[in-house]
Amino acid sequence: MRSFLISLLATTCLVGCSDVSTQLDKAAASTSEVVSKVKRSPEVDKLINAAIAGTHAYDITESLTTEIGPRVGGSPQEALAREWAVAKFKEIGLQNVRIEPFTMPYWERGIETASIVTPFPQPLYITSLGGSVATPADGIEAEIAYFPTFEALKNAPAGGLEGKVVFISGRMKKAPDGAGYGPANQKRRQGATEAAKRGAIAVVIRSVGTDSHRFPHTGMMRYAEDVKKIPIAALSAPDADQLERTLERGQTVTLKMTLTPKWLGDRQSGNVIGEIIGSERPDEIVLVGGHLDSWDLGTGAIDDGAGIGISAGAAQVIIESGLKPKRTLRVVAFGAEEVGLLGGYAYVEAHKDTDLDKHVLATESDFGAKPAYEVKASVKSGESVVRDMADVMGIPFVDAATNGGPDIGPMFAQGVPAMRFQQDGTDYFDLHHTPDDTFDKIDADEIAQNVAAFTVMMWLASETDTNFRGE
Amino acid sequence: MRSFLISLLATTCLVGCSDVSTQLDKAAASTSEVVSKVKRSPEVDKLINAAIAGTHAYDITESLTTEIGPRVGGSPQEALAREWAVAKFKEIGLQNVRIEPFTMPYWERGIETASIVTPFPQPLYITSLGGSVATPADGIEAEIAYFPTFEALKNAPAGGLEGKVVFISGRMKKAPDGAGYGPANQKRRQGATEAAKRGAIAVVIRSVGTDSHRFPHTGMMRYAEDVKKIPIAALSAPDADQLERTLERGQTVTLKMTLTPKWLGDRQSGNVIGEIIGSERPDEIVLVGGHLDSWDLGTGAIDDGAGIGISAGAAQVIIESGLKPKRTLRVVAFGAEEVGLLGGYAYVEAHKDTDLDKHVLATESDFGAKPAYEVKASVKSGESVVRDMADVMGIPFVDAATNGGPDIGPMFAQGVPAMRFQQDGTDYFDLHHTPDDTFDKIDADEIAQNVAAFTVMMWLASETDTNFRGE
Repeated sequence: MRSFLISLLATTCLVGCSDVSTQLDKAAASTSEVVSKVKRSPEVDKLINAAIAGTHAYDITESLTTEIGPRVGGSPQEALAREWAVAKFKEIGLQNVRIEPFTMPYWERGIETASIVTPFPQPLYITSLGGSVATPADGIEAEIAYFPTFEALKNAPAGGLEGKVVFISGRMKKAPDGAGYGPANQKRRQGATEAAKRGAIAVVIRSVGTDSHRFPHTGMMRYAEDVKKIPIAALSAPDADQLERTLERGQTVTLKMTLTPKWLGDRQSGNVIGEIIGSERPDEIVLVGGHLDSWDLGTGAIDDGAGIGISAGAAQVIIESGLKPKRTLRVVAFGAEEVGLLGGYAYVEAHKDTDLDKHVLATESDFGAKPAYEVKASVKSGESVVRDMADVMGIPFVDAATNGGPDIGPMFAQGVPAMRFQQDGTDYFDLHHTPDDTFDKIDADEIAQNVAAFTVMMWLASETDTNFRGE
Repeated sequence: MRSFLISLLATTCLVGCSDVSTQLDKAAASTSEVVSKVKRSPEVDKLINAAIAGTHAYDITESLTTEIGPRVGGSPQEALAREWAVAKFKEIGLQNVRIEPFTMPYWERGIETASIVTPFPQPLYITSLGGSVATPADGIEAEIAYFPTFEALKNAPAGGLEGKVVFISGRMKKAPDGAGYGPANQKRRQGATEAAKRGAIAVVIRSVGTDSHRFPHTGMMRYAEDVKKIPIAALSAPDADQLERTLERGQTVTLKMTLTPKWLGDRQSGNVIGEIIGSERPDEIVLVGGHLDSWDLGTGAIDDGAGIGISAGAAQVIIESGLKPKRTLRVVAFGAEEVGLLGGYAYVEAHKDTDLDKHVLATESDFGAKPAYEVKASVKSGESVVRDMADVMGIPFVDAATNGGPDIGPMFAQGVPAMRFQQDGTDYFDLHHTPDDTFDKIDADEIAQNVAAFTVMMWLASETDTNFRGE
């Protein structure tokens, strides 16, 4: 494990890591299983060693993906996942295990087929984007209007695409921190609106992803209020390549596409909560979490079974250690993240008038199961404590803001201090929102490093006198 | 390209390559684009350099996969591919371009869905094996009987599986020469028969493949004459993992599966042939080829668009060089290989009474588009000429038999001498028979090395006095 961490630091900390070499020196000098001994107490030592030696997150993620599988926000499977989480949280010894329900609109995928009709008939692998309206039941067949990038579409004149299917290509860049996602995702979020404004009847996009496998990537889209809603789907990268090569021949290319997704009205979702009650300041809360829902194409292993495994697994390590945290450690399995951070917003709604102002620090794991390579925080006091968390894990602290993760964002906006262990997401978008997001992609050693980091965060945030809020 | 070839020799030639270091020394001493100058004539030099600098195979494969796409033996798409091949062969300057038709039974894929019903309901990604019978239209639902390997099924007692779906797992080993394929493929070929003998109503197998992506691998299966025909499908590796983890819980696992493939009667297929007529011995034939058909899930880029590209591309290089081979160089795009080497057998049938005894040497490319790393031959004379082919390409000759490739096998069995450039197939079975067999998987430099090798084979086999038959 030690050589693994050294190698990690050497290979993945590409930017903003001025102290990498110092960390590497410390790592090389270390004789234990982990990198650094700086400021490490016997308690921290015990937690890290137990986490690294264990398979807590690995086993929890295995259980969720095997016993539940796909679990879209609002679906019957997500309800089963909540029951699973309640049972699992109790099994690992969490207290006050409960579901905080909320209602939400539920979208369900239907048939999805597409093919090139002319000039070279052949099938294409596509998937509806989440929230898309359907095509007519017998599909649409129309000429393709090609835009190499989303910017090219936005720069196109109003009108002119009447009766056409817009194809938006554009490649996403790989980066450890997933920096390519935001720019690439604009076409997914706004592509239907921009195409409809110009008269198009449907849209296909090159998947927002970094792989070259024949998996289209799904993900939520949005319609502007005042623009006609047209169906939108993603093509796998090889299919987008195929379509581009076909278009390069200069002939008219026609596409047939049938999508039958439906909005099925309001359904129940919920956040599942479990706690280790603090021994001295039980009303003060350190919150960790992941999201319980997933997309429907895969089994939600890296997105975000791993986050459930890491946050619950870290709590399990602390419980098993017999150590008694001073503050309350709260684990939250958020519902319905993929479809609009609904669990994160519902959490704020449920807690804003009760204990939200007693949340001292929050973080989420929602970026896969690869090792953390840098630490960020948005705190008004106690940055030195976060630096200690980074130091004892041998992970560089970088002076950059964070909202703590997608589901932490809404509470962060309400003043909850946030920090984050940035995981290596270089390959995350190879799998993200595809059928290929399955348990076999998770490495037991790599996910255990994250569990260790979460135990350190939970323990040190519980033991310090600062509340990170500057109060 | 040179450093690429050195790296290739250093990394892929794992067995039977006693002269790798010699080859590497030669490579390091070379100042040209290719590895070795041993026995290289100006003509050979010209051909190799033109092939390495060109994109002949790359372009031909791009054209086939883009303009035709999937092309199952006997399908309308395979007929379009024959028209494409006739046009392409003429375009590159081949002579005597013609189709040799044959009839064949045609099998077409239908609906294919599967899911775990109990204890943990979730969908599985499957595909029918080629030749499988259908399930009832509303599917079958039955308890799984698990066999970790095909051997375990064969060792099971007669009877005892009545009413069950047999699941045969077992992993395929990666190897440069694809040595894991034969053993792994037994369950695909014989699994339905062995399961039916014991009373089972259907079979699912872990895909014969080496990847961990969510693509099931199709491929032809066979029924024994005297055993009930039961449907058989392949699960992707992650789905097989999922099913195994589910079975490990010790509960009864039930599967629902619907497959609706059909045999649609006799259809036409054919071999497409083009030639460079020999200047001195036009009746003597050097044959190179690949197979034109593909499976239906991908676009048949590595299997075997690449083989069409390499063989036709090599002929194109020779035509463009202006060199005049003494013997006739014949390029064959075989039909219906995947469904039983039907084109290879039809070729023998069509030629056995005319010119088959005038075939002096034959080879096929049907193992992807990665570089060749060793050369084998089954010749009765002229082995030194084959060694020269290996030497000038800087590829080790190994003393091992070959049938020249799947479609060459039937003519080899009739006495046609065969040789083969063994391509690096380490990753071939990641893509083989899946939707992921697409053009983006081909590297222009790597496929060009194969074109160079084929030009060398065609030229030296044409120029020598031996007929490789020992006559």
